[in-house]
Amino acid sequence: MKNVILRLGHRYERDKRITTHVGLVARAFGADGIIISDINDSNVYESIKDVVDRFGGNFFIEMGEKKQTILKKWKDLGGEIIHLTMYGIPVPNIIDIIRKSPKDKLIIVGASKVERLVYEMADYNVSITSQPHSEVAALAIFLDYLFQGSEFGLKFQDAKMEVIPSEKGKEVHDLRDKDK
Amino acid sequence: MKNVILRLGHRYERDKRITTHVGLVARAFGADGIIISDINDSNVYESIKDVVDRFGGNFFIEMGEKKQTILKKWKDLGGEIIHLTMYGIPVPNIIDIIRKSPKDKLIIVGASKVERLVYEMADYNVSITSQPHSEVAALAIFLDYLFQGSEFGLKFQDAKMEVIPSEKGKEVHDLRDKDK
Repeated sequence: MKNVILRLGHRYERDKRITTHVGLVARAFGADGIIISDINDSNVYESIKDVVDRFGGNFFIEMGEKKQTILKKWKDLGGEIIHLTMYGIPVPNIIDIIRKSPKDKLIIVGASKVERLVYEMADYNVSITSQPHSEVAALAIFLDYLFQGSEFGLKFQDAKMEVIPSEKGKEVHDLRDKDK
Repeated sequence: MKNVILRLGHRYERDKRITTHVGLVARAFGADGIIISDINDSNVYESIKDVVDRFGGNFFIEMGEKKQTILKKWKDLGGEIIHLTMYGIPVPNIIDIIRKSPKDKLIIVGASKVERLVYEMADYNVSITSQPHSEVAALAIFLDYLFQGSEFGLKFQDAKMEVIPSEKGKEVHDLRDKDK
C-alpha cells in the first residue's frame, strides 16, 4: 500500500519554505513520496532532494501536474483520498478506519482556501484539532497516528549519514566511511 | 505548571511564515505562550494574535529579548529547558520522565545552526526522529506526546468562532450570535 502526499500548489514566495517542510516531514514520517500540484519550483525540489541524497530512502518528488488531473488519476487507479483540514473529522475518531483500508492513500495538504471540489472528492476530510495552525504539523500528526509511532524506528536505505541520539551535542556517523 | 515555547530568532524573510506556524501550533496544542528571541516582527505577532482574537484562549506572545537573557531567567526561576533537535534522545524514550517533572517547561524550537550553549543549558535534548524535517512538526509531535492527545479536547475561552467537525465542507459557528 502506498502513502503519497499531495501538496496543493502554493503562493510562490510566501509558502515555498512551508512546502519544503511538508516534503521533509512526509519523508521522515514514512510516506512514499510527494506530489506538488500546479507549480514547478526547483528550490523546493532541490531542498528535499538534498535530504534524500544525504539521509537516504526512496522518497520521490513530482511536481507541475494539475490538481484535477492528479485527483482523477488517483481515483481511477482505485486509490482513496484523505484531505487534512481543520473542518474535518478529528483524526483520533477516524484513524482506525483509515488504517484498516487496504487502498493506496493520497493525503492532501492544502494551503488556505482549498476549493469545495477537494472536500467533495475526498473519501475522508480529517482534522488535526479544529483550530487553525499549520499544514506541516497536521501532516506530521496524521502520519504519526496512521503509522502508530513507527517513524521512530524507520531505517533509510543508502543513507550517507546517520544521526545517533545523544543527550548533549551532535553525533553524526558518516556511513560512507564503512566502505573504506 | 507552565509550558512555554521559545522560538530562536529567525532569518527574517525566509523564516517568518515558519515562525508563525510554530506559534499557531503552540497555541492549538495547548502551550501557554511563545517567546520569540532576538527579533521583533510585527507580521508574526499580528498573525498569531489574530488567531487568538478569533479562536480564543489566553495564549501570550513575547518577542525581542536576547536568547541568553531568556534562558538564564528561566533557569533562575526554577524552570527546566527542553530543546527539540534531531540530535537528541527520541521523544518516546524520554517523554514519561519529562511529563512527570513538576517544573515549568521552556520548550526550545530552533532554526538550523543552534549554538552549543543551547544543547548544554538544556535539561533535555529531545529528537522527533533523527531525520531532518521541520521545527513545526517537531513541536506538534512533542506536545501531542507530552499532553497525550488532549489537544483534541481543548476548549478556548472567549472564542468568537468555533469549527464543528464535518464529513464534507465547513461548519463554523459564530459564537458572538449567542449574545444576541
